Amino acid sequence: MTGAGDEPTVPVGDFARLDLGRERRRGHGEAVFCEGKTAGQVREIARELVFRGARTLFTRASDGHAAAVREVAPDARHVQDARMLAWPAEPPAPAGGPVVVLAAGTSDLPVAREAVVTATHLGRGTELIADVGVAGLHRLLAHLDTLRAARAVVVAAGMDGALPTVVAGLISAPVVAVPTSVGYGASFGGVAALLTMLNACAPGVAVVNIDNGYGAGHLAAQIAAPA
Amino acid sequence: MTGAGDEPTVPVGDFARLDLGRERRRGHGEAVFCEGKTAGQVREIARELVFRGARTLFTRASDGHAAAVREVAPDARHVQDARMLAWPAEPPAPAGGPVVVLAAGTSDLPVAREAVVTATHLGRGTELIADVGVAGLHRLLAHLDTLRAARAVVVAAGMDGALPTVVAGLISAPVVAVPTSVGYGASFGGVAALLTMLNACAPGVAVVNIDNGYGAGHLAAQIAAPA
Amino acid sequence: MTGAGDEPTVPVGDFARLDLGRERRRGHGEAVFCEGKTAGQVREIARELVFRGARTLFTRASDGHAAAVREVAPDARHVQDARMLAWPAEPPAPAGGPVVVLAAGTSDLPVAREAVVTATHLGRGTELIADVGVAGLHRLLAHLDTLRAARAVVVAAGMDGALPTVVAGLISAPVVAVPTSVGYGASFGGVAALLTMLNACAPGVAVVNIDNGYGAGHLAAQIAAPA
Amino acid sequence: MTGAGDEPTVPVGDFARLDLGRERRRGHGEAVFCEGKTAGQVREIARELVFRGARTLFTRASDGHAAAVREVAPDARHVQDARMLAWPAEPPAPAGGPVVVLAAGTSDLPVAREAVVTATHLGRGTELIADVGVAGLHRLLAHLDTLRAARAVVVAAGMDGALPTVVAGLISAPVVAVPTSVGYGASFGGVAALLTMLNACAPGVAVVNIDNGYGAGHLAAQIAAPA
Amino acid sequence: MTGAGDEPTVPVGDFARLDLGRERRRGHGEAVFCEGKTAGQVREIARELVFRGARTLFTRASDGHAAAVREVAPDARHVQDARMLAWPAEPPAPAGGPVVVLAAGTSDLPVAREAVVTATHLGRGTELIADVGVAGLHRLLAHLDTLRAARAVVVAAGMDGALPTVVAGLISAPVVAVPTSVGYGASFGGVAALLTMLNACAPGVAVVNIDNGYGAGHLAAQIAAPA
Amino acid sequence: MTGAGDEPTVPVGDFARLDLGRERRRGHGEAVFCEGKTAGQVREIARELVFRGARTLFTRASDGHAAAVREVAPDARHVQDARMLAWPAEPPAPAGGPVVVLAAGTSDLPVAREAVVTATHLGRGTELIADVGVAGLHRLLAHLDTLRAARAVVVAAGMDGALPTVVAGLISAPVVAVPTSVGYGASFGGVAALLTMLNACAPGVAVVNIDNGYGAGHLAAQIAAPA
Amino acid sequence: MTGAGDEPTVPVGDFARLDLGRERRRGHGEAVFCEGKTAGQVREIARELVFRGARTLFTRASDGHAAAVREVAPDARHVQDARMLAWPAEPPAPAGGPVVVLAAGTSDLPVAREAVVTATHLGRGTELIADVGVAGLHRLLAHLDTLRAARAVVVAAGMDGALPTVVAGLISAPVVAVPTSVGYGASFGGVAALLTMLNACAPGVAVVNIDNGYGAGHLAAQIAAPA
Amino acid sequence: MTGAGDEPTVPVGDFARLDLGRERRRGHGEAVFCEGKTAGQVREIARELVFRGARTLFTRASDGHAAAVREVAPDARHVQDARMLAWPAEPPAPAGGPVVVLAAGTSDLPVAREAVVTATHLGRGTELIADVGVAGLHRLLAHLDTLRAARAVVVAAGMDGALPTVVAGLISAPVVAVPTSVGYGASFGGVAALLTMLNACAPGVAVVNIDNGYGAGHLAAQIAAPA
Repeated sequence: MTGAGDEPTVPVGDFARLDLGRERRRGHGEAVFCEGKTAGQVREIARELVFRGARTLFTRASDGHAAAVREVAPDARHVQDARMLAWPAEPPAPAGGPVVVLAAGTSDLPVAREAVVTATHLGRGTELIADVGVAGLHRLLAHLDTLRAARAVVVAAGMDGALPTVVAGLISAPVVAVPTSVGYGASFGGVAALLTMLNACAPGVAVVNIDNGYGAGHLAAQIAAPA
Repeated sequence: MTGAGDEPTVPVGDFARLDLGRERRRGHGEAVFCEGKTAGQVREIARELVFRGARTLFTRASDGHAAAVREVAPDARHVQDARMLAWPAEPPAPAGGPVVVLAAGTSDLPVAREAVVTATHLGRGTELIADVGVAGLHRLLAHLDTLRAARAVVVAAGMDGALPTVVAGLISAPVVAVPTSVGYGASFGGVAALLTMLNACAPGVAVVNIDNGYGAGHLAAQIAAPA
Repeated sequence: MTGAGDEPTVPVGDFARLDLGRERRRGHGEAVFCEGKTAGQVREIARELVFRGARTLFTRASDGHAAAVREVAPDARHVQDARMLAWPAEPPAPAGGPVVVLAAGTSDLPVAREAVVTATHLGRGTELIADVGVAGLHRLLAHLDTLRAARAVVVAAGMDGALPTVVAGLISAPVVAVPTSVGYGASFGGVAALLTMLNACAPGVAVVNIDNGYGAGHLAAQIAAPA
Repeated sequence: MTGAGDEPTVPVGDFARLDLGRERRRGHGEAVFCEGKTAGQVREIARELVFRGARTLFTRASDGHAAAVREVAPDARHVQDARMLAWPAEPPAPAGGPVVVLAAGTSDLPVAREAVVTATHLGRGTELIADVGVAGLHRLLAHLDTLRAARAVVVAAGMDGALPTVVAGLISAPVVAVPTSVGYGASFGGVAALLTMLNACAPGVAVVNIDNGYGAGHLAAQIAAPA
Repeated sequence: MTGAGDEPTVPVGDFARLDLGRERRRGHGEAVFCEGKTAGQVREIARELVFRGARTLFTRASDGHAAAVREVAPDARHVQDARMLAWPAEPPAPAGGPVVVLAAGTSDLPVAREAVVTATHLGRGTELIADVGVAGLHRLLAHLDTLRAARAVVVAAGMDGALPTVVAGLISAPVVAVPTSVGYGASFGGVAALLTMLNACAPGVAVVNIDNGYGAGHLAAQIAAPA
Repeated sequence: MTGAGDEPTVPVGDFARLDLGRERRRGHGEAVFCEGKTAGQVREIARELVFRGARTLFTRASDGHAAAVREVAPDARHVQDARMLAWPAEPPAPAGGPVVVLAAGTSDLPVAREAVVTATHLGRGTELIADVGVAGLHRLLAHLDTLRAARAVVVAAGMDGALPTVVAGLISAPVVAVPTSVGYGASFGGVAALLTMLNACAPGVAVVNIDNGYGAGHLAAQIAAPA
Repeated sequence: MTGAGDEPTVPVGDFARLDLGRERRRGHGEAVFCEGKTAGQVREIARELVFRGARTLFTRASDGHAAAVREVAPDARHVQDARMLAWPAEPPAPAGGPVVVLAAGTSDLPVAREAVVTATHLGRGTELIADVGVAGLHRLLAHLDTLRAARAVVVAAGMDGALPTVVAGLISAPVVAVPTSVGYGASFGGVAALLTMLNACAPGVAVVNIDNGYGAGHLAAQIAAPA
Repeated sequence: MTGAGDEPTVPVGDFARLDLGRERRRGHGEAVFCEGKTAGQVREIARELVFRGARTLFTRASDGHAAAVREVAPDARHVQDARMLAWPAEPPAPAGGPVVVLAAGTSDLPVAREAVVTATHLGRGTELIADVGVAGLHRLLAHLDTLRAARAVVVAAGMDGALPTVVAGLISAPVVAVPTSVGYGASFGGVAALLTMLNACAPGVAVVNIDNGYGAGHLAAQIAAPA
C-alpha cells in the first residue's frame, strides 16, 4: 500500500482534504456535505474547488452555507427546497439513459427535487412526476409508458413507503427507493417507509438512507450511466 | 391496466394531483395533509377544490396553512386545537350509526377533537366524552349506556393506553384506538400506548397511528356508515 | 362498583374464571387463548364450556392442546394450519354483511385462514382470496367487484405489508390489516409490515397485532355485524 | 474502604463467592440464579449453603438444576412451574402485612407462582388470585375487599399489561407490576406490557423486569415487612 | 357494575372530571398533570379543587401553568426546578417512616426534588442527598446509617443508572429507582438508565418511568405510609 | 383499471396465482419464495411452472422443499448452501455487463452464493471473490482491476458491514450491498451491517434486505442488463 | 466498609460533592459535566476547585457555563467548538506515548477536538488529522507512519462509522472509537456508527459513547500513560 | 495503492484467504471466527495455518469445529466453556503488564474465560476473579490491591452491567467492559448491560461487543503490551 500517494489530495486549512481523484476513480466529482460544517469551512472548500474548476455539488446546505458558497462562486445554482447548490450552474449535456423521479406525495417533493438536481448535474436526462401515491393507483398507472422507458426510477415516499414496491412490479428497470421523514408518529421519522422498502415483495428495489435525495440521484445516475 | 385513465385526476401546478374519483370510489371526498406542504401549495390545492365544490378536510394545518386556506375559502371552519379545517363549514346531515369519542385525559383532547371533526364532516352523529381514564374507573362506567348505544367508539389515550381494552371488554361495537404522544419519557412519544392497544387482551380493537385523530374518525365513520 | 357481582363468572380449578356474560355483553362468546396454558388446563376449561353449551373458539392451539380439547369435545372442528378449534363444529347461519379475507402471499395463508374461521364462527359469510400481492397488481384488480361488495375486508400480509393501503384506496368499506411474520431479516418478525399498515397513506385501515388472525376476524365480524 | 473485609464471604470452588452477610445487611438470605450456571456449580453452591444452614431460594432452575440441588438437599421444596426450589422446604411463620398476587390470565400463572413462593419463603402471608384480566372487569371487582386489605399487591400480566394500572387506581397499597412474555408478535416478549406498566396513569406502580416473579415477590415482601 | 355512581365526580367545563373519591380510595388526593393542558384548563381545574379545599399537587407545570394556578390559589407553593406546585403550601405533619432521596449527580437534582416535594406533601418526612454517584463510592458509603434508617429510598440517576443496584445491595428497605434523561447520546434520553434499573442484580428495586420524580415520590410515600 | 384482465394469471389450487406476465413486464421470470409454504404447495407450483416451461428460481428452499421440486423437475439445479433451486438447470447465455460478487468473510458465503446463482440464471456473467474484508485491505486491493471492470458489484458482509462503502469509494459502478446476519450480539442479526450500509459515506451503495442474496443478485442483474 | 471516610470529599452548597481523592485514586483529576447544571452551580464548583488548585476540565459547557467559569477562573482556556474549558490553561508537560486523533470528516471535528483537548490536559502529546474517511482510502494511507507510531489512536466518525475498523486492521495499538451524531436519518443520531464500531471485524477497537470526545480522550490518555 | 501486493496472502480453497502479514502489521497473529463456517472449512484453514506454523486462536468453535481442528492439530488446546482452541497449546511467555479479568457473576464465566484464554495466548500474564458483582460490594473491595496493580482490567457482566463503572472509579488503568447476554427479559440479550457500560459515569471504560470475550481479551492484551 506504499502507492497510496498517487491519488491527488488537496488540504483546505486544517479541516478538510479534497479528493480530486474522485472524478477519475468514480466517474463523478466531489460533493460537499454541509451539515455540521461551519459556513466558513464550506466557503474555503468551495473557494479551493472553484479555483481548480472542479464540478461540485453542495448538499444539506442551510441558507447560511449557501451565502458562503455564493461569496466565492456567485454564479452557483441554488435550489433552496432541495438545500443544494451546484457549480457550475449549468449541468453537463445529458448522456446515458433517462432517469424518472417520482414523489409519492407533495410533501415528498424536497427530497425528490434533491434527486433530480443530483442526477441532472451528474449528466443524466431527468423527469419529475409528483403526487402519484398508491392511495389512488390510477394516478400512477397513467404514467406507465414514461416509467417503462426509464433506465432507472427514483421513488421518494414517506408514510407507508409502499410506492416503490408497486412501481418495481410494473417495470424492468431498477427502482431506487428513498424513504422520507414525512408522516404521523409511528412513521418514526421515515423508519416505517425505510423498512417497507427493504422488504419490498417485488425484487429490484435499491434502498438508500432516509431523506437522502442526493444518494438516490447519484445511484440512479450511476445505473443509467452510458455503457 | 389500460383503463387507468377512467378516474378523474386534476393537476395543481406541478406539485399535486387531485383524486376527484375518491368520493365515488371510497364514499368520502378528499383530505389534504398539510404538514410538509408550503402555505402556497395548500392554498392552490384549496382553490381548485373549492372551485370544483369538492367537500374537503385539511389536516395537520398550522396557523399559516389555515390562513392560506381562508384566503380562497373564507367560510371554511377552522378547529384550531385539532389543527383542522373543513369546507364547507357545515357538515352533512348525520346518517348511519352514532360515533362516540372518548379522551382518556384532558391532554388527549386535541386528538379526540380531530376525530370528532372528521367523523362529523363525513356525516356521522358524534359525541365527545373527556377525562375518563382507567385510574378512576367509575368515571367511565357512568357512561356505559352511551357507549353501548354507539356503532363505533373512538378512544384517544396516551401514557399507558389502557382505556381501549377496558372499553372493548364492555361493549359489542368495534373500538377504534388512537394512541397519543402524551406522557413521560418511556412513553416514547406514544409508542407505549400504541403497543398496549395492539396487544389489547379484549378483541375488537382497531388501532391507528399515533396522534392520528383524523384516521380514527375516518375509520369510525366507515364502520358506522349507513348500510 | 358494588354491582360487580351481577356478571356470571365460573371458576375452573384455581387457574381460570370463565366470563359467561361475554356473549350478552359483547355479542360474541368466549375464546380460549391456548399458548402458555398446559394441555390439562385447556381440557378443563373446554370441559366446563361444553358442559354449559357455550359456543367457543380455541386459538393458538398446538396439536397437544387440540388433542386435549377433543378429549372432552370429540366433535370440535380443528383447523390445523390456523391452529384453531371451534365448538360446536357447525358455525351459526351467516348474518350481517359479507367479509372478504385476502392473503397477500401463499405464506400468509395460515393467518388468513385464522381470520376466516373466526369470522365464520362468529356468524358472518366469508370468502378467502389468496396470492394477490402488490408485486402483480392485476391479480388484485381482477377481484375488485368482490372487494367492493364486502362490508369489511381483512388483509393478511407480511414482507412490505403494502397490500392493505392499496386495497383501502380502492373501496369504501374498512380494511382490517393483519401483519404476518413472513419475510427476510429486516421484516423483524412482522414489525415492518405492522409499521407500513399503521402508516397507510389511505385512511380506513384498522390494524391488529402481528399474526393475530383471530383478532382480525373478530374485528371484521363486529364491523359487518347486523345493524 | 479498608473495612471491606468485615463482611463474611465464602468461596465455592473458583466460580462463586457466597455473601453470607446478606441476611444481616438486607434482612433476607441468599438467592441463587441458576440460569447460565452448570448443574455441578449449582450443586456445590447448594452444598455449601445447606452445610451452613442458610435459608436459600433457587430461581430459574431447570429440571437438571433441581436434581442437582436435591442431591445435597433432598428435602428442598421444588415448585416446577415456577422453576424454583426453596430450602428449607418450610417457609418462616408469616409476619408483616398480607401480600396478594394476581395473575391477569392463566398463562401468567408461572410468573405469579414464582412471586408467591418468594414472598412466602421470605416470611409473608400470601394469596394468589388467577384470571382476572381487564377484558372482564367484574372478575377483578369481585375481589376488591381482599385487594384493599393487602399491604402490597403483585400483578403479573402479559399482552397489554393493563391490569396494574386499573388495580392501582382502586387501592392505597403499592402495586408491584411484573410484565410477562405472554402475547402475540407485537408484545415483543413482554416489552409491550413493560411499557404499559412504566406509563401507568395511576401512580403507585413499581415495575420489575419481564417474567421476574422472584423480583416481584421479593419487593412485595420488603414493602410488607414488619415495621 | 351499576354501583359505579357512588364515587363523587365533579366535571370542570367539558374537558375534565375531578375524581374526589381518590383521597378516600387511595389515601392521597388529586394530582394534576399539566403538560398538554392549556393554562386556562389548569386554572379552572385548580379553581374547582381549591373551592372544595382538596389538597392537590400540580406536576410538569410550565411557568405559564404556574401563573394560572396562582391566579386562583395565590398561596400555592411553587418549586420551579421541580416544575411543581402544591396547595396548600404547607405539607401535612410527617407520619409513617422516613424517606431518603438520592440524586446520583447534580444534574439529576430536578427529578430528585420532584420526588422530595411529592413525598413531603403526601405526609412523609424526607431527606435529600445529592451527588453520590458510583464513580466515587465513598461519597455514598458515608451516608450508610441514614440509608439504613429509611423506610424507602428514592434514587434518581441518569447515564449508567448504576446507583440503585448498589444502594439496594446495602440496605433492607425497598429502593425506588427513577431514571433521568441526563447523559450522552447512547443514554437515549434515559433508556439506558431505565434498563440498568430493571436489570438490577440486587433484588428490591422498584422502577418508575424516566424523569418521573412525582411517581417515585408517590410510590415511596405509599411504601413508607403508617401501618 | 378495467383492463386489469389483460395480464395472464394461472391459479394453482386455492393457494397461489402464477404471474406469467412477469417475464414480459419485468424482463425476468417468476421466483418462488419457499419459506412459509408447505412442501406440497411448492411442488404444485413447480409442476405448473415446469408444465408451462417457465424459467424459475426457488429461494429459501429447505431440503424438504428441494425434494418436492425435484419430484416434478428432477433436472432442476439445487445449490444447497444458497438454499436455491433453478429450473432449467442451465442458465441463459451471459448477456449485459459483468457482475462481481464479494463475500467479506467465509461466513458470508451462503448469501453471496445466492446472489451469484440468481444473477447467473437471470443471464449475467458473474464472478465470486471470497474473504476480502476490511480488516486486511490488501486482500481487496489485489482485485481492483476486476472490480473496476464490473457493471455492478454485489457485496455481502456481516459484522460491521464496512466493505461496501470502501468498495464504492474505489469504483464507478453501483455497489449492491447485502447485509448478512453473521456476527456477535450487537450485530442484532444483521441490523448493524444494514445501518452501516445505509449510512455509507461513499455514494453509490444500493441496499437490500438482510441475508437477501436473491434480491441482491436480481438488482445487480437489472443494473447490468443489456441496454 | 467503615473506612469509607478516608477519601477526601468537599461539599459545594447542597448540590455537589467534590471527589478530591480522584487524582490519587485514578491518576487524573476532576472533570465537571456541565449539561443539566445551572450556570450558578458550575460557577460555585469551579470556585471551590480553583481555590484548592485542582486541575480540572469542564465538559459540555454552553457559552453560559463558560462565562460562569470565567468569573472565578478568568485565565481558564475555553475551546468553544469542543464545548470545553481547562484550568489551568496550560496543560502538563507531555508524558507517556503519543496519541493520534482522527476525524473521519470535517463535521466530526468538534468531537475529535474534545478528545484532543482532554488527552492534552491529561498530559499526553497529541496530534489531530482531519478528513480521512474511507470513501477515499488514500487520504488515510498517507498517514500510516504516524498512525503506527502512536500508543493509542482515537477515531471520531459519524455516518457509517467504518474508519476505526479499517485503522485497527493496519496498526498494533488500540483504537478508541467514538461515534458522532453526524449523518442522515438512519444514522439515528450516531447509533449506526456506534453499532459499526461495536461490530468491528478487526479486534482492538474500544468503543465509547456517542459524541463523547471527552471519554475517548480520557481513555486514550490512560492507555498511553507512562508505565 | 499499487503496492497492495506486498502483504502475504494465502488462499484456502475458494472460501478463505489467510492474512499472514497480520502478525507483523498488528503484533498478533490470526484468529479464526468459526461460527457460520462449516467444519470442513475450519479444518482446511487450520491445516494451512499449522503447516505454516502460524500461532492461531479459533473462536466461537462448536464441538464439531473443535473436532475438525483436532484432526489436523491434535495437540491444540480446547477450552470448551469458552468455545476456543489455541494452537500451539502452550502460550508465549508472559510479557507486558498484568491483565485482570473479572466475572460479575458465575454465569458470566464463559465469556470471562474467553478473555483470559485470549490474553494469555497473546502473551500477557492474566488472573481471573469470579462472582464479585455490585450487589455485595465487599467482595470486590477485597481485591482492590490486585486491581490497582493491573495494567488493564477486563470486566464481564450481564444483567445491569454496573460493575465496570464501579471498578473504573477505583483504579487508574483502563477497564475493558464486555457485556454478557445473561439476564431476565429486559436485558435484551445483553443490550441493557451494553448501554450501562457505554454510559459509565466514570471515564476510562472501553466497551466491546456483547459476549465478545475474545475481543475484550485482545484489547486488554494490546493495552498491556510491552512498550
